[in-house]
Amino acid sequence: MNKQWILSKFPVGEIKEGDLVLHDSEIPKLIDGQILIKNIYLSLDPANRGWMSGQKSYVDAMQLGDVMRGGTISIVEDTKSEKFEKGDIVNAMGGWQEYCVSDGKGIRKIPLNTGFKLDSFMSILGMTGMTAYFGLLDITKPKAGETLVVSAAAGAVGSIVCQIGKIKGCRVIGIAGSQDKCDWLVNDLGIDGSINYKTENLREKLKELCPSGVDIYFENVGGKNTEIILSRMNVNSRISLCGLISGYNSETIVPGPAWGNLLVKRINLRGFIVFDYIKRYMEAFQDLSTWMRDGKIKYKNHIIPGIENAENALKKLFNGENFGKLIIEVSKDPTL
Amino acid sequence: MNKQWILSKFPVGEIKEGDLVLHDSEIPKLIDGQILIKNIYLSLDPANRGWMSGQKSYVDAMQLGDVMRGGTISIVEDTKSEKFEKGDIVNAMGGWQEYCVSDGKGIRKIPLNTGFKLDSFMSILGMTGMTAYFGLLDITKPKAGETLVVSAAAGAVGSIVCQIGKIKGCRVIGIAGSQDKCDWLVNDLGIDGSINYKTENLREKLKELCPSGVDIYFENVGGKNTEIILSRMNVNSRISLCGLISGYNSETIVPGPAWGNLLVKRINLRGFIVFDYIKRYMEAFQDLSTWMRDGKIKYKNHIIPGIENAENALKKLFNGENFGKLIIEVSKDPTL
Repeated sequence: MNKQWILSKFPVGEIKEGDLVLHDSEIPKLIDGQILIKNIYLSLDPANRGWMSGQKSYVDAMQLGDVMRGGTISIVEDTKSEKFEKGDIVNAMGGWQEYCVSDGKGIRKIPLNTGFKLDSFMSILGMTGMTAYFGLLDITKPKAGETLVVSAAAGAVGSIVCQIGKIKGCRVIGIAGSQDKCDWLVNDLGIDGSINYKTENLREKLKELCPSGVDIYFENVGGKNTEIILSRMNVNSRISLCGLISGYNSETIVPGPAWGNLLVKRINLRGFIVFDYIKRYMEAFQDLSTWMRDGKIKYKNHIIPGIENAENALKKLFNGENFGKLIIEVSKDPTL
Repeated sequence: MNKQWILSKFPVGEIKEGDLVLHDSEIPKLIDGQILIKNIYLSLDPANRGWMSGQKSYVDAMQLGDVMRGGTISIVEDTKSEKFEKGDIVNAMGGWQEYCVSDGKGIRKIPLNTGFKLDSFMSILGMTGMTAYFGLLDITKPKAGETLVVSAAAGAVGSIVCQIGKIKGCRVIGIAGSQDKCDWLVNDLGIDGSINYKTENLREKLKELCPSGVDIYFENVGGKNTEIILSRMNVNSRISLCGLISGYNSETIVPGPAWGNLLVKRINLRGFIVFDYIKRYMEAFQDLSTWMRDGKIKYKNHIIPGIENAENALKKLFNGENFGKLIIEVSKDPTL
């Protein structure tokens, strides 16, 4: 039997009980060309909320009755495809379930002899790392000596952006929502300063920590803090627009900041979606894995066991309760 | 004697009587290195409102008691500078006054034997044309076959943007605020369609006129229409942020559109200020003057005689009463 989370209502505002329903189903028999994968790790990401909205965006909308969509690291349990062998470890959109039958499309094998732990392929060496890498380097082209401000800086993507910024010689200031996270950013990741937006005056602290203004803003959050950050940005500064988590649970469209600062400061703002960089993942993988081996970059995964906990875990993302990349351990990691 | 408009209060909201005061002063005697210029044409631009705000932006803030700042075409009446001769026609920041004494800094001579009328150097061959040229071509890099939407399309900058868009092979849709303007855009300038945002349903008309979505949006206006335009934009589309006239008279900061569309559509938005392109003006001048000679581009100036009318004329910009580039004829054009 296969435990699955089914999208049964499009959530309005925060995800409520009954929007997703846990359900047991039988695993269908494989036909030629198919594989059966068993999910090991399931990625929980802010973008998941958008996929549940019933609206097409950069991916097709989910339909009611679908298994909740999600990225996984999985192991091939059975195969009727020539492309996969039993025991292959793969990256897949295996969904919120224990098992998934697939025709193999979009499934990539993970190399096993790299010396990196398997869960790192779900964070720093996976989509999360790619998002940070291309979102910072390709979109904003940071130069040594520039000041980079990152929101949700202790989050999965933000914490990697911060460290890549340091590697590139930037002054890096991170914004986060707890003292623990702020301390970790400065003491463990070695960034130049952090701001607890819940307890500190963001405007004053930005002035203090960014005496030469802000050259690059990496946006994960949106909401009222963005306006304040815009007011500290420099002429010809850049914004990488990666996420807007503060608004994802909103029942109405939240207006954005006024565009006046974008105009008079000639700001270049670009939205991006990591999937657009799929052909360049190797480039990021090589740099990120080298930095990992050299001890220049760290990652933190927040792993919660049990597929049955996925719904409650996802909610943590929106109130900031997670600390590091949020992952569900669906089944025991066979490489440990 | 020299009639001058003096900034005597920083306007709050709309410009009111008494914010600017007309005043007679004596013309000071020249000292070595100075020139006396007599203003012929005075440029009225949306940006003037920002200069009066008392806030530094991309230029220093004006102080109370200053002569109102403005770009002019002027003639050298007297000179104690080796760089200028009596009778030279120049481009200057001559201000809202009849005469101006200057050390010559930032003043450029206008070539007289080009065959172009002098007032064209205040619009299509001046700052207005440069703004349209670089704001469209450098910021958005239009490709043939793309759909370009322009707000304030019948305005000084907008009407040139529309025509450059056509020259580059775009499908061009202009948004304007009267039927006269809309008709002129289509019938005289030859763009593909126009929308009267005051009487038509912008959302519906955009859908009808931009069946393949919007690839480029040239923003002169801001306000609630922008959100609607964003909803019709394509993946990897671009926004050139040139102006936000709808908010310039606002007493409070008007929020902008939500950033969600910028993100999921990977929109590249860039603010710009024409002064940043000063070293490349020749490039624009050559193209624009060639297009003028070849009859590919037209301009429309709205010329109001009399420096005493400058304040009332400026107000026309904000309620859309002008039709074409708004210019005060301060003194008789000696080349006519």
